[in-house]
Amino acid sequence: MPTGPSALPSIASLPARVGETVTLEGWLYNKRDSGKIRFLVFRDGSGYVQGVVVKKEVPEEVWAASGAVTQESTVRVTGVVRSDPRQPGVVELGVTDLSVLSLCHDWPITPKEHGVDFLMSQRHLWLRSARQVAVLKVRSEVESAIHDFYYSRGYTRVDSPILTPAACEGTSNLFETQYTEDEKAYLSQSGQLYLEPAAAALGKVYCFGPTFRAEKSKTRRHLREFWMVEPEVAFLEIDGLMDLAEEFVKELTGRILDRRREELKRLERDPAVLEATCAKPFPRIDYRDAIEILKGKGFPVSFGDDLGGDEETALTEGFDTPVMVTRYPISIKAFYMQPDPKDPEVVLGLDMLAPEGYGEIIGGSQRIHDHDLLLSRIEQHQLPLEAFQWYLDVRKYGTFPHSGFGMGLERFTAWMCGVPHLRECIPYPRMLYRIYP
Amino acid sequence: MPTGPSALPSIASLPARVGETVTLEGWLYNKRDSGKIRFLVFRDGSGYVQGVVVKKEVPEEVWAASGAVTQESTVRVTGVVRSDPRQPGVVELGVTDLSVLSLCHDWPITPKEHGVDFLMSQRHLWLRSARQVAVLKVRSEVESAIHDFYYSRGYTRVDSPILTPAACEGTSNLFETQYTEDEKAYLSQSGQLYLEPAAAALGKVYCFGPTFRAEKSKTRRHLREFWMVEPEVAFLEIDGLMDLAEEFVKELTGRILDRRREELKRLERDPAVLEATCAKPFPRIDYRDAIEILKGKGFPVSFGDDLGGDEETALTEGFDTPVMVTRYPISIKAFYMQPDPKDPEVVLGLDMLAPEGYGEIIGGSQRIHDHDLLLSRIEQHQLPLEAFQWYLDVRKYGTFPHSGFGMGLERFTAWMCGVPHLRECIPYPRMLYRIYP
Repeated sequence: MPTGPSALPSIASLPARVGETVTLEGWLYNKRDSGKIRFLVFRDGSGYVQGVVVKKEVPEEVWAASGAVTQESTVRVTGVVRSDPRQPGVVELGVTDLSVLSLCHDWPITPKEHGVDFLMSQRHLWLRSARQVAVLKVRSEVESAIHDFYYSRGYTRVDSPILTPAACEGTSNLFETQYTEDEKAYLSQSGQLYLEPAAAALGKVYCFGPTFRAEKSKTRRHLREFWMVEPEVAFLEIDGLMDLAEEFVKELTGRILDRRREELKRLERDPAVLEATCAKPFPRIDYRDAIEILKGKGFPVSFGDDLGGDEETALTEGFDTPVMVTRYPISIKAFYMQPDPKDPEVVLGLDMLAPEGYGEIIGGSQRIHDHDLLLSRIEQHQLPLEAFQWYLDVRKYGTFPHSGFGMGLERFTAWMCGVPHLRECIPYPRMLYRIYP
Repeated sequence: MPTGPSALPSIASLPARVGETVTLEGWLYNKRDSGKIRFLVFRDGSGYVQGVVVKKEVPEEVWAASGAVTQESTVRVTGVVRSDPRQPGVVELGVTDLSVLSLCHDWPITPKEHGVDFLMSQRHLWLRSARQVAVLKVRSEVESAIHDFYYSRGYTRVDSPILTPAACEGTSNLFETQYTEDEKAYLSQSGQLYLEPAAAALGKVYCFGPTFRAEKSKTRRHLREFWMVEPEVAFLEIDGLMDLAEEFVKELTGRILDRRREELKRLERDPAVLEATCAKPFPRIDYRDAIEILKGKGFPVSFGDDLGGDEETALTEGFDTPVMVTRYPISIKAFYMQPDPKDPEVVLGLDMLAPEGYGEIIGGSQRIHDHDLLLSRIEQHQLPLEAFQWYLDVRKYGTFPHSGFGMGLERFTAWMCGVPHLRECIPYPRMLYRIYP
């Protein structure tokens, strides 16, 4: 197989090259044949371009190559970039030369319907489909927007460890590994505890990395390995945290609308809800009010109940933006959440629910900053005090109010894309009974 | 403890506020007392500012608070921002009000020399020291520069999985976990194999995430959990890969010089080598020539030997930029590296060695793209064919030359900072016998 130069123009750069003769390398994505003209769609990862091969205008071997080339074959193609008269802003390639670098036989992902199990076992190839490419580009753009959001606001990125000691809250949902002969370690479910001491050093921090849940559940909303972004801010309290979460989601959504319109179109994603999310304030609903709303809709719920998927969907009905639910009962939330001084039965926490049934995308809270209160909460939850000594230290030496939240990247991406299942929102999903490829 | 508002100005913003009266929240970092004037250095994570408290100019309780406040106490301080007459560009705060939010007792990290074990066990507090803050800010800036480098060049970020099936190359250095009752999983050492199929979908991709080595070694150059960035590029060959690696290191280094001068100064890092790295081309040395150079320096080496730390340091002697060594013997490199068509005893790989004894910061190669050659290499290495079927598929369906490399974030950060030990270059280091806090 001949190999080509490394610095050829990308397909994405062609609209700026109208009139030029260019050589590209990439894959054949699609082909139509009308006897004396062939329409070949090429892709190179940066985009797609239609090449037009006219029999009477190209040498015989080029015409033959355009007939022989199959989907997913690698090609080197030369042609003249020209505007597509029917689609403003779109260019096509008047092909003058074409060589097949590697002919693809028996490409397994055909236009017929495949079962999910088949596609998942071919994930390394399925990635090449236009839909998967679009989802992965949206995901990557979200990651980029996350980075830019925190960088531009002076946050320091602090990578939390994955390998953590002593299982703090039971080991049933944790992946365990032998760290040394004598010691076990567990894969982290959140970086929060490690961010709090870092907030005392750096003020505004965030982590962004993989987290792990060895869940036995097999639903469209669960992955065993997923990415989470978690900011933690010194001297920030619950109201400021809600503002931060809303500003964050608005900025990420605006970025996708700005820079990934083409991918949303390919995914047939109606952008109306995303546009509303950028434009309107998010409703903030007190948990006590949420219970009343749900009762009114016929749910048999009362104070102290956790909200499930159906309740979450019901609460967001009628809204075209995310909804924030705050001040959950202390009994159903984590030990470190700050009780509301005015209403000690509830904590200063927030869940942000995406509209359209996408469920919780953000969970967060103000943290307890009083040493003795935190200590008593650790004892009430019967957690091993020794494992939390370092965490208590944050309250021992110059304590400070602080708050943070976590947002799951795949859930957010699923909502942006309008894709119902998380398994398409991560390059190589890890689910129950699915770890290959 | 009273809690304050969340939107106070940061210390970093003070040079733009000369003449204003501001209120800040943060920690006391240092204190000097000269009888009737006290100099209090405050920090809030964004920077440091000296507050000047003059006894006769402040109310009695403010003077008392300025006497009582201890290092690492949290404070709310109000004062007038003014230029420091002795240091252009530096501001100080003429304190008018001061309240201690939480008084810190017995701060354990005193100016006296502490042993490394003590500091490591206090890592959650040690993070607050000026040196650690500086290193973590450089690390975060490198991460930001990595992101911007790839984003601006049209790469798609593709997060490789951490949980991977079947241990491919022996399990001795792998962390193992029970994935399901019947199946084990291993923590990834590299995302490369997963990036190659993604490069066929997206052209230019990279991953950035934690990687794991269950090494038994206890050296300053080894962590059991560390972060790695890995680009993988379709249709890129070895010469282009070397250009990419050099451009990458130059851009990252330039960014640190541009935006983290203050941190380099605090770390007493001489920027001369970093400036040379930005300005000069990196020497590219063929492995065969490297062996001759080392022989000339008295090392008992011959073709086929791997290069250790001492050899690496000797090779970079006399250079003030990184050095790239290429075309290593096929016998000491990974099975997937492309043999040199002109010299099949060597592979089209590269190692980039940092100067000043910081060792290998980048390792990469052109990958074998021929299906049958890769198959024979897998067989020669006696690797389990079944586990590599999906990896071979990349060569089966429209194969293409491609190349990539990996760069360890902590090693690069260590070199930028001039810090000899990797344990200071990651927020919570994981080493043999060290997983707490």
